[in-house]
Amino acid sequence: MEQQYTSEQLLNFVTKVFQYKGMPEDQAHICAEGLITADLRGIDSHGVARLSGYLRLMDAGRLHPNPTIKVIHETPSTATIDADSGSGLYAGQVAMKMAIEKAKLVGSGWVAVGNSNHFGIAAHHAMLAMPHDMIGIAMTNASPLVSPPLSSARMLGTNPICIAVPAKKYPHLVLDMATSTAANGKLEIAQRKKKPVPTGWLVDPQAQETTDPNALKSGGALLPLGSDGDHGIHKGFGLGAMVDILSAVLSGANYGPWVPPFVSFLPVLPNIPGKGLGHFFGVMRVDAFRPLEEYYKHIDHWIETFKNTPALSPKGRVVLPGEPENDAYAERFENGIPLHEEVVKDLYQISADTGIPFK
Amino acid sequence: MEQQYTSEQLLNFVTKVFQYKGMPEDQAHICAEGLITADLRGIDSHGVARLSGYLRLMDAGRLHPNPTIKVIHETPSTATIDADSGSGLYAGQVAMKMAIEKAKLVGSGWVAVGNSNHFGIAAHHAMLAMPHDMIGIAMTNASPLVSPPLSSARMLGTNPICIAVPAKKYPHLVLDMATSTAANGKLEIAQRKKKPVPTGWLVDPQAQETTDPNALKSGGALLPLGSDGDHGIHKGFGLGAMVDILSAVLSGANYGPWVPPFVSFLPVLPNIPGKGLGHFFGVMRVDAFRPLEEYYKHIDHWIETFKNTPALSPKGRVVLPGEPENDAYAERFENGIPLHEEVVKDLYQISADTGIPFK
Repeated sequence: MEQQYTSEQLLNFVTKVFQYKGMPEDQAHICAEGLITADLRGIDSHGVARLSGYLRLMDAGRLHPNPTIKVIHETPSTATIDADSGSGLYAGQVAMKMAIEKAKLVGSGWVAVGNSNHFGIAAHHAMLAMPHDMIGIAMTNASPLVSPPLSSARMLGTNPICIAVPAKKYPHLVLDMATSTAANGKLEIAQRKKKPVPTGWLVDPQAQETTDPNALKSGGALLPLGSDGDHGIHKGFGLGAMVDILSAVLSGANYGPWVPPFVSFLPVLPNIPGKGLGHFFGVMRVDAFRPLEEYYKHIDHWIETFKNTPALSPKGRVVLPGEPENDAYAERFENGIPLHEEVVKDLYQISADTGIPFK
Repeated sequence: MEQQYTSEQLLNFVTKVFQYKGMPEDQAHICAEGLITADLRGIDSHGVARLSGYLRLMDAGRLHPNPTIKVIHETPSTATIDADSGSGLYAGQVAMKMAIEKAKLVGSGWVAVGNSNHFGIAAHHAMLAMPHDMIGIAMTNASPLVSPPLSSARMLGTNPICIAVPAKKYPHLVLDMATSTAANGKLEIAQRKKKPVPTGWLVDPQAQETTDPNALKSGGALLPLGSDGDHGIHKGFGLGAMVDILSAVLSGANYGPWVPPFVSFLPVLPNIPGKGLGHFFGVMRVDAFRPLEEYYKHIDHWIETFKNTPALSPKGRVVLPGEPENDAYAERFENGIPLHEEVVKDLYQISADTGIPFK
């Protein structure tokens, strides 16, 4: 059962809820936009469905509603930010804006963020670069759920990478991908439906293949992209590892198994080496490499070429990175965002707890 | 049947062969080092086995032995280079050195290279950054052999990405991966052995799954990392697409199906949009983000943590990115490089053709 809500409705509600928790209005609005953008783009697992999770982290004192973000290290093309235990939804936007300013001056900007929390979908941050004729990059580490090859130890998060590339005649290209084979959200759907999942998604506690979607909850782990030794699992593991290192070892955040869990009922591990979790952002000005007209001519031609390639997809042609999300955005912006009844129940509960009317 | 050769022997021979073809001595030495490094690291498909391929490209006039490399666009943190149809083995080193100088001045350096040729293994270039306490990134597009999801059209190369991260107490981490599930070299091994390959490596001309290693030669295509819709093929496709765009659309090189094939008997497609093929390089100074001591303490701790994770691998523990290559390097530097008899025959033929003694 689903109900439809407009993005404006949800944006208003979430902004007010964050304000109620002590967030200044501008930050609350920025964080709310991050969640609503995820819903509009069809990434339901990262939209308002997560609101109660963020609130519980605030109540547990692990997410500061009113952080003082500090630049702790800087060169003309780089910076490191301490997010003061605030929301990554906000810190990510601050970091990207800083990277954009650096790119304006010296061609590119690269910002590592430590002492942060979950930043929502990577695309929401990376895409900030595109209206400036810049390429945007965003990545983050995350709660440990993914094992290295041939292991069941949860050592990495699903550590997503986003690369957003501006185009002119056609919609931009936005690759936003977890470095695991399947995201946790897909497991949850299979759990609800009591259906097995494909092999290659996860392992049981003995590091053996399984199709049981509950194996993660009972001590197993998600698998890196590639799934097994015959299909390049070391590549997905390597990508996840590099996201972890750029996000956390460059910024002073926690890495590997010490990344603080998103769910507030799980404790932070002892002997943590860093502060909070980490992100990494990059921005490159297109005209720092090539005149804009030449670039746009070629990127539009690239898109046209790939779009015209026949394929067995339902569209009968190749689907480009970000295309399903663009389609969802157009449809949901027009017709509203469908929310699962569990999510709606959650939002009514938040409304009851805070006194902020929902709907 | 294999024979052992020392890296010095091979380096001398290859340098002289390139000189014979008209390459200045310094460039010939740099290009030879690229090939021998691949052999030392155990990437046999990209070592001296490729020498005859490079020579045929020279004979066909598609690879200039004595290029004049030009910087055609520049900002403090970025540059674009025209490699003048020379070897990517050389242009890659020039570009990385330029990126390193930029990183010294402004924290990071990013260089796109167009009008180039095959650059060998990505790691050979990316690893140049590490002795400077910098992180190195290298990628390239390549001969079209890989299809988008649900298609059999050869639209992308195996488009590798390398990220090289310096460490202190432990060997550095070097992720060097094709963005396809399997590399062409592995297919060739299966072809020689007349053995089927796992599903998920390639498709036949009708875009259907096949285990026939000859399907690529008969009009099929390699598959992107992820292999199918259940296992994230759109991620491998997206990564390969981004490598293509950064390498070629930023530099003015050819992209997608127009990337000039490495094998000289295949013609360059008509109506090519750019020049040669393209690479993209990046360098970030570690201390542009964080004091070196803090960084090295944490990266060594990261490595130690992951190394100590139990796994079902032959080592009984997790294998880190670049570890198999480091092991091969140590072993082969000590005991010599084993060359397949076909490769040895090839080198003797080159010796006969050029009058340069082999062995």
